[in-house]
Amino acid sequence: MRSVLYTGERTFTVVEGEVRPPGPGEVRIDVAYTGICGTDLHIRHGAMGARVRPPTVIGHEMAGRLAEIGPGVSGWAPGDPVTVMPLEWCGECPACRAGHTHICHKLNFVGIDSPGSLQGSWTVPARLLVRLPPELPLHRAALVEPAAVAVHDVRRAQLAAGEQVVVVGGGPIGLLVARVAAVDGAEVLVVEPDSRRRAVAQHLGLSTVDPAAEDVPSFVDNWTAGAGVAVAFEVSGSAAGVGTATTVLAARGRLVMVAIHPIPREVDLYRLFWRELSIIGARVYERRDVERAVDLVAKGDIPADDLISRVVPIDQVNEAFDALERGGEVKVLVDCRGGGDV
Amino acid sequence: MRSVLYTGERTFTVVEGEVRPPGPGEVRIDVAYTGICGTDLHIRHGAMGARVRPPTVIGHEMAGRLAEIGPGVSGWAPGDPVTVMPLEWCGECPACRAGHTHICHKLNFVGIDSPGSLQGSWTVPARLLVRLPPELPLHRAALVEPAAVAVHDVRRAQLAAGEQVVVVGGGPIGLLVARVAAVDGAEVLVVEPDSRRRAVAQHLGLSTVDPAAEDVPSFVDNWTAGAGVAVAFEVSGSAAGVGTATTVLAARGRLVMVAIHPIPREVDLYRLFWRELSIIGARVYERRDVERAVDLVAKGDIPADDLISRVVPIDQVNEAFDALERGGEVKVLVDCRGGGDV
Repeated sequence: MRSVLYTGERTFTVVEGEVRPPGPGEVRIDVAYTGICGTDLHIRHGAMGARVRPPTVIGHEMAGRLAEIGPGVSGWAPGDPVTVMPLEWCGECPACRAGHTHICHKLNFVGIDSPGSLQGSWTVPARLLVRLPPELPLHRAALVEPAAVAVHDVRRAQLAAGEQVVVVGGGPIGLLVARVAAVDGAEVLVVEPDSRRRAVAQHLGLSTVDPAAEDVPSFVDNWTAGAGVAVAFEVSGSAAGVGTATTVLAARGRLVMVAIHPIPREVDLYRLFWRELSIIGARVYERRDVERAVDLVAKGDIPADDLISRVVPIDQVNEAFDALERGGEVKVLVDCRGGGDV
Repeated sequence: MRSVLYTGERTFTVVEGEVRPPGPGEVRIDVAYTGICGTDLHIRHGAMGARVRPPTVIGHEMAGRLAEIGPGVSGWAPGDPVTVMPLEWCGECPACRAGHTHICHKLNFVGIDSPGSLQGSWTVPARLLVRLPPELPLHRAALVEPAAVAVHDVRRAQLAAGEQVVVVGGGPIGLLVARVAAVDGAEVLVVEPDSRRRAVAQHLGLSTVDPAAEDVPSFVDNWTAGAGVAVAFEVSGSAAGVGTATTVLAARGRLVMVAIHPIPREVDLYRLFWRELSIIGARVYERRDVERAVDLVAKGDIPADDLISRVVPIDQVNEAFDALERGGEVKVLVDCRGGGDV
């Protein structure tokens, strides 16, 4: 089987990997598709050096079928379609003891902190498995993990039907957040400078605004008759995005910080005070978020085919990253099933 | 009667003011005491020029007795002890329509945006009145307004009994927040560099730490066995305070931003993400907060006498401000009742 080794210095090397039989409590998955996440791009750029030690296999947005069932694993059979919730927690730290296992102080994010799914065969603990409906095509199911992020983000916002929402940033996660918010009954506006991403957003039934062409706070002021929006999601990762998301909120508005800001950002704490805003951190997801994401993708509420802009064979994995870096893509998948001779 | 005119350029001038009879819907109060608030200090420093146009009377932390009842006012009688909830809202803006009248888009904060209580006689709309228990000494009742701020801040935190809390900043509001949190069953640590304020905090039964002598995050880490605290209140107004309050929080911790930060502050949004923190804006109070504050001061749960460090006759009002600026004071009151000839 093919395996994509991250060997450091921006390089992924496709090798013939070793199939590892499942140990006790483990399963082996024939991986069908692995999506490329923004974090994977950061890894390629060397920004995750403290956590990712090459050579290793990354990747955590995946779908596939069970190939082998290890000793002591029940309830699963070869051929079952699955995805993986790639979180392993310690169960003993203060966060775990408080019930927040998904933000365990010692969280192992599988595919970053330990080997991932950019390979044809992947052996993982069975407790990470999430069952997929048999009728759900596996390429669509590869979107379950990022969709779970969006479900979690919207849940953190405590969104109510009928609320007006601004999503700052129309990349894959921004569009997924916007769709989940729309499914939950919100009126959603996506702020995105890239015209191709705006076109995708519009195709998904979302309103859009180009921040290079419009003054977004004025636009939102008009849209909301001077009130501002109830909820904003900052998904751009930019300093300007933080400013926009803070400015467009109504009294008691909630700002969910979805993007990862590796450096401190200036925040308008006067506005936070004046309008009694809340800024809410959101990280990964809990199992119920993943299960809802499966349901949303399976029902088509998250139209996966509209979000997948490219599928690249595993032998051309570097092309998948190059395409994302060129811009204009939404979700790029790697088909992990095939490959000729290395 | 004496009236303290803010005439701009750091100057308060005591004059013989005009007693204004109450119009329809109004009452006239014989003001007993007015406390000096941090905002009043900012006004003296010229930092509120956009809202305070001299010559005018400021002051909004007060207690007194009704002197005259205007036409159309029922339920009140001369001699009734009262304080004032100094907020006037429009009732029509989006915030008011959403039920958040206390953060009305056009809020008139009485004593800042319109004339206040640093005078012997004050005429206000009767709807602003808050009844005081007859047995509550009026100097203690002058602390109801800042206590209401603290009640509101603690309510915004959704504090639960047994939670560990850090209050960054041990000025009057910080100490009030700490006391209210303690009354609500929290274990409270006050971070304050001024030794006199730490002594007051300790006298109030609160734990303290000196940030100049201890590394506060390490101290809190030890105190909480590595968990961090459930709730932090930023009451220092400093950039360093924002950093401390963000760093000491546990997974899903809540940071209530009590101090007013007139300029944007760098916020560690990575920490916000990593621990799924929330940062919550808090501004003034609602009527139920004021009513609870009356109750807490009346019962002695807020020990007003321990917080009032000085009472200054109205003729020496500048000395009240000077004392606050020198540092080491907690709450300074102006006795508005007397005064000889001007």
